[in-house]
Amino acid sequence: MNVTIWNENVHERTEDHVRAIYPDGIHGALATALAEAGSVRTATLEQDEHGLPASVLDDTDVLTWWGHAAHDDVADEVVDRVHDAVLGGMGLVVLHSGHYSKIFKRLLGTTCSLEWRNEGERELVWTVDPAHPIADGVPQPIVIEAQEMYGEHFDIPAPDELVFISSFAGGEVFRGGCCFKRGRGRIFYFSPGDQDYPVYHHPDIQRVIANAVRWAARR
Amino acid sequence: MNVTIWNENVHERTEDHVRAIYPDGIHGALATALAEAGSVRTATLEQDEHGLPASVLDDTDVLTWWGHAAHDDVADEVVDRVHDAVLGGMGLVVLHSGHYSKIFKRLLGTTCSLEWRNEGERELVWTVDPAHPIADGVPQPIVIEAQEMYGEHFDIPAPDELVFISSFAGGEVFRGGCCFKRGRGRIFYFSPGDQDYPVYHHPDIQRVIANAVRWAARR
Amino acid sequence: MNVTIWNENVHERTEDHVRAIYPDGIHGALATALAEAGSVRTATLEQDEHGLPASVLDDTDVLTWWGHAAHDDVADEVVDRVHDAVLGGMGLVVLHSGHYSKIFKRLLGTTCSLEWRNEGERELVWTVDPAHPIADGVPQPIVIEAQEMYGEHFDIPAPDELVFISSFAGGEVFRGGCCFKRGRGRIFYFSPGDQDYPVYHHPDIQRVIANAVRWAARR
Amino acid sequence: MNVTIWNENVHERTEDHVRAIYPDGIHGALATALAEAGSVRTATLEQDEHGLPASVLDDTDVLTWWGHAAHDDVADEVVDRVHDAVLGGMGLVVLHSGHYSKIFKRLLGTTCSLEWRNEGERELVWTVDPAHPIADGVPQPIVIEAQEMYGEHFDIPAPDELVFISSFAGGEVFRGGCCFKRGRGRIFYFSPGDQDYPVYHHPDIQRVIANAVRWAARR
Repeated sequence: MNVTIWNENVHERTEDHVRAIYPDGIHGALATALAEAGSVRTATLEQDEHGLPASVLDDTDVLTWWGHAAHDDVADEVVDRVHDAVLGGMGLVVLHSGHYSKIFKRLLGTTCSLEWRNEGERELVWTVDPAHPIADGVPQPIVIEAQEMYGEHFDIPAPDELVFISSFAGGEVFRGGCCFKRGRGRIFYFSPGDQDYPVYHHPDIQRVIANAVRWAARR
Repeated sequence: MNVTIWNENVHERTEDHVRAIYPDGIHGALATALAEAGSVRTATLEQDEHGLPASVLDDTDVLTWWGHAAHDDVADEVVDRVHDAVLGGMGLVVLHSGHYSKIFKRLLGTTCSLEWRNEGERELVWTVDPAHPIADGVPQPIVIEAQEMYGEHFDIPAPDELVFISSFAGGEVFRGGCCFKRGRGRIFYFSPGDQDYPVYHHPDIQRVIANAVRWAARR
Repeated sequence: MNVTIWNENVHERTEDHVRAIYPDGIHGALATALAEAGSVRTATLEQDEHGLPASVLDDTDVLTWWGHAAHDDVADEVVDRVHDAVLGGMGLVVLHSGHYSKIFKRLLGTTCSLEWRNEGERELVWTVDPAHPIADGVPQPIVIEAQEMYGEHFDIPAPDELVFISSFAGGEVFRGGCCFKRGRGRIFYFSPGDQDYPVYHHPDIQRVIANAVRWAARR
Repeated sequence: MNVTIWNENVHERTEDHVRAIYPDGIHGALATALAEAGSVRTATLEQDEHGLPASVLDDTDVLTWWGHAAHDDVADEVVDRVHDAVLGGMGLVVLHSGHYSKIFKRLLGTTCSLEWRNEGERELVWTVDPAHPIADGVPQPIVIEAQEMYGEHFDIPAPDELVFISSFAGGEVFRGGCCFKRGRGRIFYFSPGDQDYPVYHHPDIQRVIANAVRWAARR
């Protein structure tokens, strides 16, 4: 299985405290976490064609997507290409602030807006579909000590499968683990993870993302 | 619209602190709350045929169901009759501990088990489908100061529509507002409400139940 | 209820045999059919802003959409505006070849492609959700003597509710009556209807479209 | 993977023309068809505990079910045991007239009624979810020269995933390939197959059932 990890890679290059958490970038942390799931490569915004020429997508079984500060800088032709690839069967795992990426909004058709508050709150990730392969081996709940809060209402179509719901110390809830099928492609959105917190170093979160990559991969 | 409110009516007759909260029974409180939704009658376990002979069901557009201590005392032939009525188009609104009623398990086919803890915690009820008619006019979130906790995993089929998700002070989440369609009937499960707390006197909870009754009623 | 009927109105202006079937345009036929459902106005491609300025959409509870030959001529800013209106709660009923319209593809995120063959075949429209309000009063099946064939695979997300499935004399099947919810808006796709056949004069088809308009209308 | 094939085995023992088609019983034909999918055993109604004691179910990853003439002769305690096994994670593939089995109705909660006509009509099985693993390697459509007709309305809950829709020479349609998840178990209903026709010798049908067995098996 060929996994391509896409990262905007802006915060890591411009903010010391983010680089301290993710010295190899969020993409680097994810590459380490997914090393056993398949053959992993990374791609970032600043590369030519954002590192996603047709030759890369044609050779990708599942693409993970992290972006936040520079969604608008992603070229529409690259979005078109990723969109076609997903409809053709490439898996897509959209992470955290990627909910506002062009590709996620293109695939889902809604605003994908949500409520948020960044105060380093405890997040609990509850499994509501324990037999789902993406929940395999995951504790009930996953405990994340400090996280940005993402809350409802999350403006997405009703997911084809709902796997996880998060709660936050402030009392909010969020449908943070959602499966969608579009064309021949499988899409998983997973909300945990932010540039300000070491969430992608959390073993349970890594487990979920690895599970998701296997579930979403092209068949 | 003809609404029949069914209540087991055991706690109210045997426990002083429950009778203090619901002097007219939970069915009495609901009858008051639903007075504007239609023509309301009540029925309870201790009545002949539990107050649900065929003549009553034939004349009922939507039935609400509350039970807890005496699920096993509900006669199978009455369950069969209610089951047939729902499949034939009568609406059903199942409340709180009714998740373990024979009729709910019969209609859904699963154990309907869940996690729980009764420590009078704050419950927040979040709308995740704000355009749904059952969420009409409801604040985001509904705040219930003290409630029994119901938590995931809730062993139900994936609901046809998910309207509300609750969080509790302890951090748990629960899919507490779920729509199901079975046969020609509409079913709504709503988790808030317990004999130990005055939840059915809460105006927002009353609003949801009234909305649900209108949504579920026979067409 | 304010209904706006949008029609591309190209075939009717350029082809005699279409004008013979729809002398007032497809929009005219639909306006007659929907006269009892609400206050009806029509809008067409050749009008300024395609007849859909913000003032019209703001005053529209449900919009019906028919297009075929000129999907690409619909201005992107009008598509954006309609998209925003649907997400904000305006209903949308997309008819037949409107499956390839910009707005339908924008809302659903997939190619919306399908198989087709125009040989005037008998279409049977079967109800698979008889309690759905859009199927109210509809015979099982609806018989359309001559129609263009639309067949699977239809590349759409799994519909939130599937109401009708068609079969054709050639043996094909098609999910021709599909409900989607996006944002606060309700969308119904209904496949029967083509410029070459008098399908929009068929009383059962008119009934379905009127039911759909009521179901989808802004709340 | 351990596959248990359950068959009522009534028609094959009592009707010559059925025995001519299935000399080893429908269970024998399925055992041959599924030989590569895993370790296969068979069980039939006339055996002690219908061949389904707890020891067999505990050792079964997926159970297939065929019944028709003797649904009522299946003991309730065996149905209870199979029900528990499915909710606990055992897969279940229900075939053709098994739609009226006690176990299928128990799991789904509806009547599971349908329309039918036995005149040996051509059935076409169309894939509506081409990326689904159960549709892997299947032609579009599968052609069955002669079959009993099963038609809508099929009184089931909306399936969690709809994979196949059949059409018949008489024009009827049927949701003949439906996925359900209940508890930790996966259920697939597949309508093709009847004691009067050699449908279980059809290589494409065997392919679907083998795919379904792999999809449904306990994880």
